[in-house]
Order: sequence, then C-alpha cells, then structure tokens
Amino acid sequence: MRTRWADESYQGIVRTGFRMKRRLFKGKSPFQTVEVVETSGHGRLLLIDGMTMVSERDEFVYHEMIAHVPLFTHPRPRRVLVIGGGDGGSVREVLRHKGVERCVLAEIDPLVVAASRKYIPKTAAALSDRRCEIRIGDGVRFVRETAERFDAVIVDSTEPFGPAKELFGPAFYKDVRRVLTRDGVVVSQAGSPFYEIGTIKNLMRILKPVFPVVEPYLFTNMTYPGGLWSFLYSSKGPRPSRDFKPARVRAARLPLRWYNARMHEAAFALPEFLRKAVGR
Amino acid sequence: MRTRWADESYQGIVRTGFRMKRRLFKGKSPFQTVEVVETSGHGRLLLIDGMTMVSERDEFVYHEMIAHVPLFTHPRPRRVLVIGGGDGGSVREVLRHKGVERCVLAEIDPLVVAASRKYIPKTAAALSDRRCEIRIGDGVRFVRETAERFDAVIVDSTEPFGPAKELFGPAFYKDVRRVLTRDGVVVSQAGSPFYEIGTIKNLMRILKPVFPVVEPYLFTNMTYPGGLWSFLYSSKGPRPSRDFKPARVRAARLPLRWYNARMHEAAFALPEFLRKAVGR
Repeated sequence: MRTRWADESYQGIVRTGFRMKRRLFKGKSPFQTVEVVETSGHGRLLLIDGMTMVSERDEFVYHEMIAHVPLFTHPRPRRVLVIGGGDGGSVREVLRHKGVERCVLAEIDPLVVAASRKYIPKTAAALSDRRCEIRIGDGVRFVRETAERFDAVIVDSTEPFGPAKELFGPAFYKDVRRVLTRDGVVVSQAGSPFYEIGTIKNLMRILKPVFPVVEPYLFTNMTYPGGLWSFLYSSKGPRPSRDFKPARVRAARLPLRWYNARMHEAAFALPEFLRKAVGR
Repeated sequence: MRTRWADESYQGIVRTGFRMKRRLFKGKSPFQTVEVVETSGHGRLLLIDGMTMVSERDEFVYHEMIAHVPLFTHPRPRRVLVIGGGDGGSVREVLRHKGVERCVLAEIDPLVVAASRKYIPKTAAALSDRRCEIRIGDGVRFVRETAERFDAVIVDSTEPFGPAKELFGPAFYKDVRRVLTRDGVVVSQAGSPFYEIGTIKNLMRILKPVFPVVEPYLFTNMTYPGGLWSFLYSSKGPRPSRDFKPARVRAARLPLRWYNARMHEAAFALPEFLRKAVGR
C-alpha cells in the first residue's frame, strides 16, 4: 500500500508531513475547515484549514508553555480567560493550578470544541471540569462586553488571518487590559521567529503602548514549521523573570513534561537575530 | 509546472520537504551519497544519504552552537580539532575566535569537502583559512594515532550509523580524552530529544566514565526533524555554566545570529521529560 502523508505546506517553501493511518473527521463550519487524522507516529492531529493545531504526541509543549508561564508569574491567579483554544489543551493546563477557581473559554467555533471532545479527549477532557465555562462566540466581542474581571488572559489563537485576525489588533488588547485585575497577565500566540518574525514585531508594537511589560518567549515543538515558536508575555506589572518564584513551581508538583522552573527562565533568552529584531 | 520537493523521511513517520528549484550535484563516495539542491526558500541544501545536513538559511544555528559553547567555556582555546564537519561550517565558527591558532579538520569523505567548497562556499570558505588543516581520513584513527594535543574537540558527526558509527563508541572517547590538554572540552552531536532520546542517553553513558563533566544542551533549527536538537558538552574540568564568563562573549563582538551569552546559559535548561530521562 502506498504511504499516505498528512502534509502541511507553509509559505509555499516548506512542508511537513505526518504518516497517516486514516482520516477520522472532516467538517466545515462558517469559520473554517476542521479535520482530525490518525497518524502512525504522532497520535491524532487536529487540523484547521490544513494547518496542524494539535498533535497528541507533542501538544503538551505548547499548552504547558502558554499556561504555566503566566500562571506561575502572576502572584495568585484565580480567574482565567482563554480566548480561542477550543481543543481544551490550554484549559487543561490552567486547571492544574489548584488556586484557579474559574476558567472561561471563549471559542468562536463550536465545531472545534465538538471535534476535540470526540476525537482528542486527552486534550479536551478538562472542558468538562466544573470550573470551566465554555462561551461559544467571538472572543473580541466577549472582552469588549463582559463585566467580569480576570487575573490572566490566554490568547490561544490560530494564525493572524481568517477568524483570528482581530486578535492581532490594538482595539482587542485595550479591551483585554480593561478586563484584567491589577496584577493581570496576558499571553498571546505570536508565530514562528524563523519564518514570520514580522508577526512578533507587529504584535509587540501593538502591545507596548497598552502594557508596561511585554516580552517574547520561545518553545519548540515537533509539528509546527521550523520547530521554534513564540508567545508574547505582557502584564500590568509582574515581570516573568524578576517576579518569578521557582520555589512555587517545585511546590506545586504538577505532572508536566516540558515546563519547569529553569525552562521558564530559559524561554526568555532570545537568539541574537531575534533579540536585535525586537530591540531588546 | 508541478512543485517539486526535496523530502526527507525520518523514522518512517514524519517527513520534511523543502521546495526545490533544481539539483546541483549528486555523487557517490565509498562512504555515502552526497547531494546539493537549490531550494526556493532555504538556499542550498547539502544532503548525505538523503538527510539534510546543512541548509544555507539556518546552518548558522547548528554551527554557532557547536563551536561557541565549548570555545567560550574553555579558558583559552588555541588548538581545536573538528571531526566530521567536512562542510566547513564548524571550522568557520571556530576560526572566528582570534585566539585559535590552529584548527584541524579530520573528515573521512573528501567528496563532502569538495561538494561543499564548490556549492556552499559561504559555509565552506573557512576551510581555506591558513589556520585550518584538512586531514582526509578516519577521525577515529586520527585521535588514536596523533601525537598532537588540542584544547577542544568538536565531534560534528552524522547519525549514529554508517560511517559515523564509531564516533558514538567508548574507545573513541578514551582517545579523545588522551588528545585533550588539561582543561580540554569536547562537544558531540547527539540527535533529536523528541525522536531519539536513546541516542542522548547512550552517549551520556559512554561519556560519563570518561569525563568528570557531561551535560546536554539544546538548540532548534528549521531543517532537522522536530526542530529541537542536542549536543553533549563534556570536559576535563570547565563547567559550561559555572565557569562561563558572559563578559568574554560581549568583548569578542563576533557577528553571530543565534549564540549570545544568555542563549549559552539557556541552552543547558532541559525540558522536564529530558531532564528526567537523563537523571539530572
């Protein structure tokens, strides 16, 4: 039998393929195409518009880094808002923090939530936790209209086009600041330092007038083009290095596979080309 | 016209493809197949037995990390031995250190040197530096027989099978220790932490009885499967964190794109799954 590959082409110059056993699901919502495929070496993949969002084998990297960096920096996070992230991976990591009383997930596309619950339950299970409330709808509108306040906001978005476009704009981040409590922290998905350094620079330009602290940090996973990927950490005050207490990580004893206190600090070291590009 | 891809399949479960313009060279030596292809987005690629060894776009990451970590840790490196690395990238970075008086390259396959000189001159140019001596021949035999002594040995090998197999064995490293001066340091290519953690563990088991200091460190490039990759740092004494002087890096003012003092230190932070696997 001919080998089949779930191939993702990126910028027309590189493609990554995972050996495919079979497609489990393909559906179209008003927002995007959602697919789940079973692979031979990477578990199941969730793809949105042909781009790999989650692989069961390595999604722990992305989700641990998007959640634990802000939640171990904020002095005492109790209420968390996740925007996007309908696969549930970020919520799962957020809810590992025993002090978190409530986690709201604002996801625009119910098809992502439904497909994740059914086909990638290890990633999605926490969506059924009693501390989690799922709000299907536009996250931009949610932060504009809600009266609720959050200690941390996690912007777990897709790429800066399509339904996620406004999540890379200035109006959105002013509303994010508004819904944050005094020591509030924000993390935003910011793309590939190798392939789309412009995304990081644009997002920093938007965030810097809004927050006194804005710092990129990095991680590597197996399934995103080029491996290396970035988040932006912003906050109303807490600094991810100076105000970070390694002892808190050790005391929490979470069952993690990527994040630890040293990785937290190391993630803020930037390769020379990126350090120069963002003027740090 | 149909898009052509230079595809590398890895472990049968993942493949990475670079959009190809044309093949510039393909030759077979007694050791391996050597190819150079021109791509649309990653410059030229050097492939050995179908595996990407060098891409012009991102080879700086690998070569800066294999050379500057040992050379900025050793108190005063003057003589350096590179084993493998016939593309010349490691030699180029070694020779950026003004204190280095001599760099011997022991490469088994003259075809790699010839193809690199001709087709990837930006990587290979330093092979013509007057401080560089190319010794075509078996690196294992070279360290067994030479009377010369070195401050640093860089094992810039291919994967742990084929011509490089012995470079992952205990006899070789005993000879490496013998050719090292008192504060001697060694770096070894150690594979993918995601896909072949066994390679790192085996190599550490071999190195630990030979050297008092053995520590893995990490980098990410665009073209190796899974992005994340490892080196092992070993030495007769100097420790890569405690004995490292960031001020020396700043004073040297080298024109680098990945390595800097903070990246040096951050590279030794290990993701939790790897930290546990190697017992650190």
